Amino acid sequence: MRTIDWVDGAVEIIDQTALPDTTRILRLSTVEELVAAVRRLAVRGAPAIGVAGGLGVALAARQFADDPDGLADAVELIRTARPTAVNLARCVRRVAGRLPDGPEAVLAEALRIRDEEIASAERMGRLGADLIASLCGERPRLLTHCNTGALATVTGGTALAVAFELHRRRALAGMVASETRPLLQGARLTAWELGRAGIPYRVAVDGAGPFLMARGEVDAVILGADRICANGDVVNKVGTYAHALGARAAGIPFVVVAPESTVDLDTPSGDAVEIEDRGAAEVTSLLGAACAPGDADAVNPAFDVTPHSLVTAIVTDQRVVRLDRGEGLGAYRPA
Amino acid sequence: MRTIDWVDGAVEIIDQTALPDTTRILRLSTVEELVAAVRRLAVRGAPAIGVAGGLGVALAARQFADDPDGLADAVELIRTARPTAVNLARCVRRVAGRLPDGPEAVLAEALRIRDEEIASAERMGRLGADLIASLCGERPRLLTHCNTGALATVTGGTALAVAFELHRRRALAGMVASETRPLLQGARLTAWELGRAGIPYRVAVDGAGPFLMARGEVDAVILGADRICANGDVVNKVGTYAHALGARAAGIPFVVVAPESTVDLDTPSGDAVEIEDRGAAEVTSLLGAACAPGDADAVNPAFDVTPHSLVTAIVTDQRVVRLDRGEGLGAYRPA
Repeated sequence: MRTIDWVDGAVEIIDQTALPDTTRILRLSTVEELVAAVRRLAVRGAPAIGVAGGLGVALAARQFADDPDGLADAVELIRTARPTAVNLARCVRRVAGRLPDGPEAVLAEALRIRDEEIASAERMGRLGADLIASLCGERPRLLTHCNTGALATVTGGTALAVAFELHRRRALAGMVASETRPLLQGARLTAWELGRAGIPYRVAVDGAGPFLMARGEVDAVILGADRICANGDVVNKVGTYAHALGARAAGIPFVVVAPESTVDLDTPSGDAVEIEDRGAAEVTSLLGAACAPGDADAVNPAFDVTPHSLVTAIVTDQRVVRLDRGEGLGAYRPA
Repeated sequence: MRTIDWVDGAVEIIDQTALPDTTRILRLSTVEELVAAVRRLAVRGAPAIGVAGGLGVALAARQFADDPDGLADAVELIRTARPTAVNLARCVRRVAGRLPDGPEAVLAEALRIRDEEIASAERMGRLGADLIASLCGERPRLLTHCNTGALATVTGGTALAVAFELHRRRALAGMVASETRPLLQGARLTAWELGRAGIPYRVAVDGAGPFLMARGEVDAVILGADRICANGDVVNKVGTYAHALGARAAGIPFVVVAPESTVDLDTPSGDAVEIEDRGAAEVTSLLGAACAPGDADAVNPAFDVTPHSLVTAIVTDQRVVRLDRGEGLGAYRPA
């Protein structure tokens, strides 16, 4: 199963807003359709959004073959469809760099990104599983937040790839999936992926995580990142920071797993990152039903910043950076 | 408006499960109806549950006037309707102590508890407002969790009574209401009460609280308690502990407001408190709709424990205990 792919001249995605009830494939034939799908989170997860951005440029190259101005606007529209994840802008820039070589070269570059993400997920799973085994010993119980599985990448996942790999090694006792309000990616998507993989899991409300850690029910927290800053600050789904505080208070490891493409050495720290506020409606209504007074306002930061001092280690597809041992990200520049 | 009262020989409550859409009065004429209402949280909040317990014993005294065994069973059923709040068992015991004097004496004692709660809310509002003003200066922005307003008591509230009092003094800039999954008491009930009072507020998902504090958008956290242990540990709605960690990391006050009846000097610390797990359905479905795969399991502690070391002060109807200054609860025994 691939979350996103190029099929017969268009982009096909699993519509993540319909899961877990319905597995629906959306076919996106225009830049407008693709941008709308990214904005309404039909495709989500930093690596998957990056692939969507690259394939979007491939769509644009065909759609605006004879309209250079339209093409430039379309590429800009894709690049800024969501502001926080660095992958999107980076993949769009990379693929757009091939535009002078024609639509086929553009598509080939986009497909290369897709294939790199698939290989990257496999490596993250192995590196992360080795790390967790060394930190937690046999058959740990892990807590994760949001969705970082196959649905967030193309196949496999980032943090959830580690859980899948530990499960393959028979070295995982079970998972707590933090539900991840407002959009419930944990309860809807992570639970669905864990169930399909046969991994025992329990869903918990976001506010329960730190208490479950304090009560000794979690051996480590493992989750993804939308952007990792040069100093190791982690920008990820809102609720991540609260779980990091809980892990620190409980004295358990807090491990971030994300592809090297998520590391942004040009952003010095979390203070420099624009945090998307997605508006009140996601908070004040739920699965289409009102859950607050009709005129209620809300504050809805989609992401938060976890300071590097709370992070035990960052696992990418190329390395393990032990922030808890004073290692930093900066010395290494990905190829 | 009273959340709960004795009207013409029966207990009447506002059905909190129907808010904010519908203001429905439920009339409870039997012990069984009352216990069912407490269990399904139609009436909730430690002080309100205490009053419900007392009035329940008054109901029992009439219903089982000629059946001593049935009466004893009914009192026990009420006393154990929910395990965590100390008020329930304490109020039931107090009112049951009048059973030898007949139904009218029992009812009089229950009504005395109701009147005490009303007066207590007023005093908490004043003491808490004085404290917040001294800690935060002019027009602070406060974050609260769950519902501690009139709906949680009889009138007024506990922590929310402080917000109402500050608003009366024109000394409150606004509130963040943490939505409080799984049952959304913050989004549904606190938002409804704040809106009625004309206090500016924004709803936030539970995972966002600590980040909003880190970002400098909150000047203090103020919330209630279901039980306060002898050492100052606070048992309150799940999510409280995560907010306490956030407040500590942000260096802002974390203030607990609850009636003296919530202080339980017989419970040495939070470790000794049984935490009610309310089962998977509350987590895996939401407003009646599934929000996780059909076979999903969940862990659902209704409360958590905040260690006294994270609490700035405890405000009761009789005193302010500054835990941050080394003051303790133990020296004082309520009359």
